[in-house]
Amino acid sequence: MSDGFKASTNTFAPFLDKLADAASSAIMPHFRQGFAVDNKWDTGFDPVTIADKNGETAMRALINDAYPDHGILGEEHGPENLDAENVWVLDPIDGTRAFITGLPTWGTLIGLKTAGRPSLGMMVQPYIGERFGGDGSIAWYQGPLGQMSIRTRACDSLEAATLFTTTPALFTEIERPLFDRIEASAQLSRYGTDCYAYCMVAAGHGDAVIETGLQAYDIVALVPIIEGAGGVVTTWTGGAPADGGQIVASGDPRLHDILLRELAKAA
Amino acid sequence: MSDGFKASTNTFAPFLDKLADAASSAIMPHFRQGFAVDNKWDTGFDPVTIADKNGETAMRALINDAYPDHGILGEEHGPENLDAENVWVLDPIDGTRAFITGLPTWGTLIGLKTAGRPSLGMMVQPYIGERFGGDGSIAWYQGPLGQMSIRTRACDSLEAATLFTTTPALFTEIERPLFDRIEASAQLSRYGTDCYAYCMVAAGHGDAVIETGLQAYDIVALVPIIEGAGGVVTTWTGGAPADGGQIVASGDPRLHDILLRELAKAA
Repeated sequence: MSDGFKASTNTFAPFLDKLADAASSAIMPHFRQGFAVDNKWDTGFDPVTIADKNGETAMRALINDAYPDHGILGEEHGPENLDAENVWVLDPIDGTRAFITGLPTWGTLIGLKTAGRPSLGMMVQPYIGERFGGDGSIAWYQGPLGQMSIRTRACDSLEAATLFTTTPALFTEIERPLFDRIEASAQLSRYGTDCYAYCMVAAGHGDAVIETGLQAYDIVALVPIIEGAGGVVTTWTGGAPADGGQIVASGDPRLHDILLRELAKAA
Repeated sequence: MSDGFKASTNTFAPFLDKLADAASSAIMPHFRQGFAVDNKWDTGFDPVTIADKNGETAMRALINDAYPDHGILGEEHGPENLDAENVWVLDPIDGTRAFITGLPTWGTLIGLKTAGRPSLGMMVQPYIGERFGGDGSIAWYQGPLGQMSIRTRACDSLEAATLFTTTPALFTEIERPLFDRIEASAQLSRYGTDCYAYCMVAAGHGDAVIETGLQAYDIVALVPIIEGAGGVVTTWTGGAPADGGQIVASGDPRLHDILLRELAKAA
């Protein structure tokens, strides 16, 4: 972390908190309460809740009201006006498995793409009362420890790195051995972390996140936070991360280069 | 969870909160700050921090002052008076890997054994401001959602169960295939949860925790919480859990029987 707090100069930054308030009010009545879990897909187990849908509806209403010319891409409802200069990319509950098991490591992801690039983002953890924001130039934290700017930490080797991933089970047969080899060289790895992991990298408590199969709404909001804190986010082949897929995020650009070399072997 | 709140009739229950306050004050200045990580063991990576040591010192001072005839078993300092009728069993930071990576799923474990059996316990998560307590007859929660009694939920089959474990990597070569088979039959599993998982089972957000290699201070505080909420904690062979080792905790006694049968195959 870092001392002090710098406010973002992005015009839309104050609107992040309004969206966060609306989503939190819609979602929190359902956290740690009994609720129905639908299976979104015919195969596998991808729970989606009333809370998820209500959170997105609340954010869409605010956006449509304040910025009717903006586009919206969300997890729960259909896309709107994706050719707009500014497109909001929303995931009301990233980490639904954490959410339904009561764990506080899920978050509401609120991202803005401007001219196709992630320009502004926030991760909101309303149970804890935490918000991690970024605009690509700076990043900030607000929560139980107060309000402050955040920075990634230095880490120039895989052997010194702390890695996060949601679960190794999400990797394909080709990807898995590669992750396992990287993990074996790293100092420490943590599972089950979803979006929370990216914020821990941004705030300097971990060094990298390696994931696969991400959707745009899983990553757009997190890119300006990581980049604003001094880190790097790309696909495994070093490409732009805004469409998701195979994603690697590093706090230290030197570590990112190391990880890209390792990941290039299978990507 | 459950409506309402019942206060414990255990004489020492109010003292839990005093110990929790003292530990939290000693630990929190070190959470999400830079600090030294010692390697406690020559082999492997078992970080222990100043926070861990200071937390235990603070609790020991209170116990020695209030109850000089009680015993103390802690992770960080030597045992005191273990033949006493009442022995406090302390783990200031259960989940050191979560702690050093900034994740809020670690906790301070404060347990009391009376005549050799776990009689009272609390899990404290000071960053979130959460406390889960139990005395074997009732269990309670205090945190962002208020103060309430907690109860486990019904779950009478493995196929409907949500399982927690810290990481499958902790299982031995004999244990691992067994866990993998149980996990494959379960509806959902979550990793990286440490003590937090037991509290989620107690509060009805998950169904079971399966772990191995636990120390007494990893489990004694959690037993009265799980039991007070209506659940069961034993070793994999159905024995008393107070000494740690291979531990299984279930919210529903019917699920516990099923898990014991599965685990008996390798234990």
